[in-house]
Amino acid sequence: MVRYKIVIEYLGTNFCGWQKQKNVSTVQETIENAAAKILQEKVNLTVAGRTDAGVHAEGQVAHLDCSKKICSSKILLGINFYLRNEKYGEDISIKKVEKVNEEFNARFSALNKTYKYKIFNKHFRSPLNQKDSWWVKQKINVKDMIRASNFLLGKHDFTSFRAVGCQAKSPIKTLSKIGITKKKNIITISFTARSFLYNQVRIMSGTLKDVGTGLVKPMELKNIISAKNRSKAGSTAPAKGLTLLKVNYK
Amino acid sequence: MVRYKIVIEYLGTNFCGWQKQKNVSTVQETIENAAAKILQEKVNLTVAGRTDAGVHAEGQVAHLDCSKKICSSKILLGINFYLRNEKYGEDISIKKVEKVNEEFNARFSALNKTYKYKIFNKHFRSPLNQKDSWWVKQKINVKDMIRASNFLLGKHDFTSFRAVGCQAKSPIKTLSKIGITKKKNIITISFTARSFLYNQVRIMSGTLKDVGTGLVKPMELKNIISAKNRSKAGSTAPAKGLTLLKVNYK
Repeated sequence: MVRYKIVIEYLGTNFCGWQKQKNVSTVQETIENAAAKILQEKVNLTVAGRTDAGVHAEGQVAHLDCSKKICSSKILLGINFYLRNEKYGEDISIKKVEKVNEEFNARFSALNKTYKYKIFNKHFRSPLNQKDSWWVKQKINVKDMIRASNFLLGKHDFTSFRAVGCQAKSPIKTLSKIGITKKKNIITISFTARSFLYNQVRIMSGTLKDVGTGLVKPMELKNIISAKNRSKAGSTAPAKGLTLLKVNYK
Repeated sequence: MVRYKIVIEYLGTNFCGWQKQKNVSTVQETIENAAAKILQEKVNLTVAGRTDAGVHAEGQVAHLDCSKKICSSKILLGINFYLRNEKYGEDISIKKVEKVNEEFNARFSALNKTYKYKIFNKHFRSPLNQKDSWWVKQKINVKDMIRASNFLLGKHDFTSFRAVGCQAKSPIKTLSKIGITKKKNIITISFTARSFLYNQVRIMSGTLKDVGTGLVKPMELKNIISAKNRSKAGSTAPAKGLTLLKVNYK
């Protein structure tokens, strides 16, 4: 078997998330169908980070095994070609295909992942930004958000930021980087960690938005974390504002 | 009659352009329908720059006359509210409404207009950028584009950059500003002029792209202009890469 690593960009709007499910369009099945046509065999993708319905990716990573050795660029062009015939296939693009050795695993070899969360902050709705950002009308104080975000950095029990249904064994995670920038009307929050709890990024984004609008004081973040209680944090920010930016490997 | 100036953002993808036509969705008719509901009378919009099918706007300007004086913010909120009931209404947003005096005319009072043209330049397709940019696979030399763009600046007979069907009396226009920037994989060309010929921005963009990919030498722009022959310039760049950025008034 020959193993290939593939890097993928997608607009998540029309998909019921990454993971294959019956009767709905998913990113995984759409790519597997296209890949099967070029590789002429059944394809199973193992992904770095399963994304929810409506979440996008700029640099999602997956791997697949193939019984024969095929030129990487042929696989890339082939999948992209056959994607056109799949429903919503135009919303997916393969950016890179690379032969890797069998020890590589898209999920378990990942050192860390970076997500970004986009907020469009203005009193009017923005049709040009509506597919990949959350519209927040109220004025946001970015400095307060930055102050609050520092409390999230590092190793914590993130139970307060964990959705019901999260299957992780431990709620302890290490947020290694957090960055908040504002450019014109767009506030971007980026989060880097080895792994995240279910909906952790979206709950952290929703809570930081509450800080920005003045509903929650920056200092309060400390108490929200130590409460280890989901009801103390803010709401889960909408999926459409979230993009998996990058997965890093050794 | 009371005159109101309105500033509009829209995603042009689903519209057959600005101008009202039978049996198709247009930006003009969609806004006029929503405005009629809040103003409770028939509304006619006069626009600064009619955009083609698929072209977007960040700062389109129009004016309307109303028989009664109504608070500007009520009109803004009202149109945005009723837009939700219109087909593709979510793709339009009113950013600003302002009472103006009757001498103001969205079309004739405009000092100049700025358009931007976006190119996504990478060997792979970008689903996250496909709605508002033109995908060009071949490597683009931005410095050559900038060199070529300087020849377009100023007052010229732009016959070479004028589409068949253009109804302007004179092909002489003055391009007062042109700017080209590259950020990551996105090349943005911005054009400012008092007015443009039909498809002029898209033909200039298509021609500059040909310069970028090496098909046309930067110096050639001089000859293309002086030829006054549409067939000498490049192809008309796709509508979806074009956005009306701003209309300036006194």
